[in-house]
Amino acid sequence: MLDLYDYPVVVELPVSWGEMDSFQHVNNAVYFRYFESARVKYVESIRIEEFMKSTGMGPILSGTSAKFYAPLKYPDTISVGIKSVKLESGRIHQEYGVWSHETSRLVAKGESTMVFFDYKKGCPCDIPEGLRENILKLEPYLAEDNKVTEQA
Amino acid sequence: MLDLYDYPVVVELPVSWGEMDSFQHVNNAVYFRYFESARVKYVESIRIEEFMKSTGMGPILSGTSAKFYAPLKYPDTISVGIKSVKLESGRIHQEYGVWSHETSRLVAKGESTMVFFDYKKGCPCDIPEGLRENILKLEPYLAEDNKVTEQA
Amino acid sequence: MLDLYDYPVVVELPVSWGEMDSFQHVNNAVYFRYFESARVKYVESIRIEEFMKSTGMGPILSGTSAKFYAPLKYPDTISVGIKSVKLESGRIHQEYGVWSHETSRLVAKGESTMVFFDYKKGCPCDIPEGLRENILKLEPYLAEDNKVTEQA
Amino acid sequence: MLDLYDYPVVVELPVSWGEMDSFQHVNNAVYFRYFESARVKYVESIRIEEFMKSTGMGPILSGTSAKFYAPLKYPDTISVGIKSVKLESGRIHQEYGVWSHETSRLVAKGESTMVFFDYKKGCPCDIPEGLRENILKLEPYLAEDNKVTEQA
Repeated sequence: MLDLYDYPVVVELPVSWGEMDSFQHVNNAVYFRYFESARVKYVESIRIEEFMKSTGMGPILSGTSAKFYAPLKYPDTISVGIKSVKLESGRIHQEYGVWSHETSRLVAKGESTMVFFDYKKGCPCDIPEGLRENILKLEPYLAEDNKVTEQA
Repeated sequence: MLDLYDYPVVVELPVSWGEMDSFQHVNNAVYFRYFESARVKYVESIRIEEFMKSTGMGPILSGTSAKFYAPLKYPDTISVGIKSVKLESGRIHQEYGVWSHETSRLVAKGESTMVFFDYKKGCPCDIPEGLRENILKLEPYLAEDNKVTEQA
Repeated sequence: MLDLYDYPVVVELPVSWGEMDSFQHVNNAVYFRYFESARVKYVESIRIEEFMKSTGMGPILSGTSAKFYAPLKYPDTISVGIKSVKLESGRIHQEYGVWSHETSRLVAKGESTMVFFDYKKGCPCDIPEGLRENILKLEPYLAEDNKVTEQA
Repeated sequence: MLDLYDYPVVVELPVSWGEMDSFQHVNNAVYFRYFESARVKYVESIRIEEFMKSTGMGPILSGTSAKFYAPLKYPDTISVGIKSVKLESGRIHQEYGVWSHETSRLVAKGESTMVFFDYKKGCPCDIPEGLRENILKLEPYLAEDNKVTEQA
């Protein structure tokens, strides 16, 4: 079973009372804010900003999804893990897990895809080479799986 | 090609300046708020509240996703369409399209699944019969496709 | 009594279901989003962006407040009016009114202050002269009151 | 000078990347979410929920304000303190301070007023006696100042 140890990057976040909606649990849109907080920490940990500045290339979120297993309520604290599951030439596919500290349960899972874009040329591009190396340093198990993957 | 006429329920929403994030376009989590606004209007149009009160059964969002085709920026107005694409015994699968009035483009698509839950019994349940009729009245083309679908 | 006709700039906004919190009415923080939407339209109507580009000077929100008179609920549409009430040499004091279309009531009032900042020099500055003229064109009644006002 | 030690209740919150707006600092409306998180912890610490259940009386936020001293940016962590400054027969006036851990600066201050409402009778009411005692136990310095204060 998946657990937090499967994720190279994890953020811990308090659930805010104001994140609950009229149904008195955390609103669905808020989970995408949680995923984003994990994703931002992930891209920091591979030092993406340096590459964006030096190459003019950066990631764009092209899609994201969530599955909800149990409601979240205030008060609680969550751990949100993020891992890459597939590298293509110009894309990173990632997965998320959200755990409630109150219930010790996995309450949601998510996925997202980032595509790389060359802002100077105005078109999609490959993941810059040094950045790919940073990803593989953080997540070495991706190397084997992704050796020959071409962008779909 | 899909267009707004394919959607039985459409909401028109202004893009708020504050919905943009540091990248100066509408944040990804906000699209799920847009989808929700369309979904809320949809469930109103099938008078779901009456069924929730009389049967104690109601829908729970079990998953949702979005694909982003073009950035949205303030100022703009969007039309968000929602349609059901598959009825199972205890689930409704729905799709969304988001159009920008500024660019006349489809800027995002989405999906979501609602499962029905019997709050008295505390377990999943079938879509209440009268409610299924209301859905088929709103979206008659679902009848043919869904005659024999059983819940997965 | 104050009404919408007292406001030179008004925005009309739908109340979103997701703007309600656990208490099943619109959350207090959302009203500041509403005020912001009106303020953004106001600064557009005085063409502030031109002045920011040409002078490097722009407004910073230094404070804001709200008083709540009645709860707002989905479904509803609101009109949010904004007017300037006092011009100082380097500040604009503004007021807001929020009306519910469902109840035809004033549901909230607000205030905010913008201070002007010279981003090149890194210090507060006066309202650029042409911009002050645009404000007085939009709100001529301010001229009399503000002839001799010095920044506090 | 005011500092965190002046506040009987303090919450520590991470600044989320998504809380920044197009100007690349935390949006003004988000501060009211921060205040709310502190206020929710405050009302928990005086066990307000028990009184709401037993008396049918509860607080309503009647107004709130913020002053912004310095921009907040991701990444940062904030401490938000809340204290009561005045008890009236049916109102609590409170103040907030927001500190950035990155800069060790006070970045914002706030105020809010809660009025008590008798939901059974449908009208404003006094602060329930036991609750007032809980407040004075948490903030004994209020006792002296508020001995004879009548509701304005």
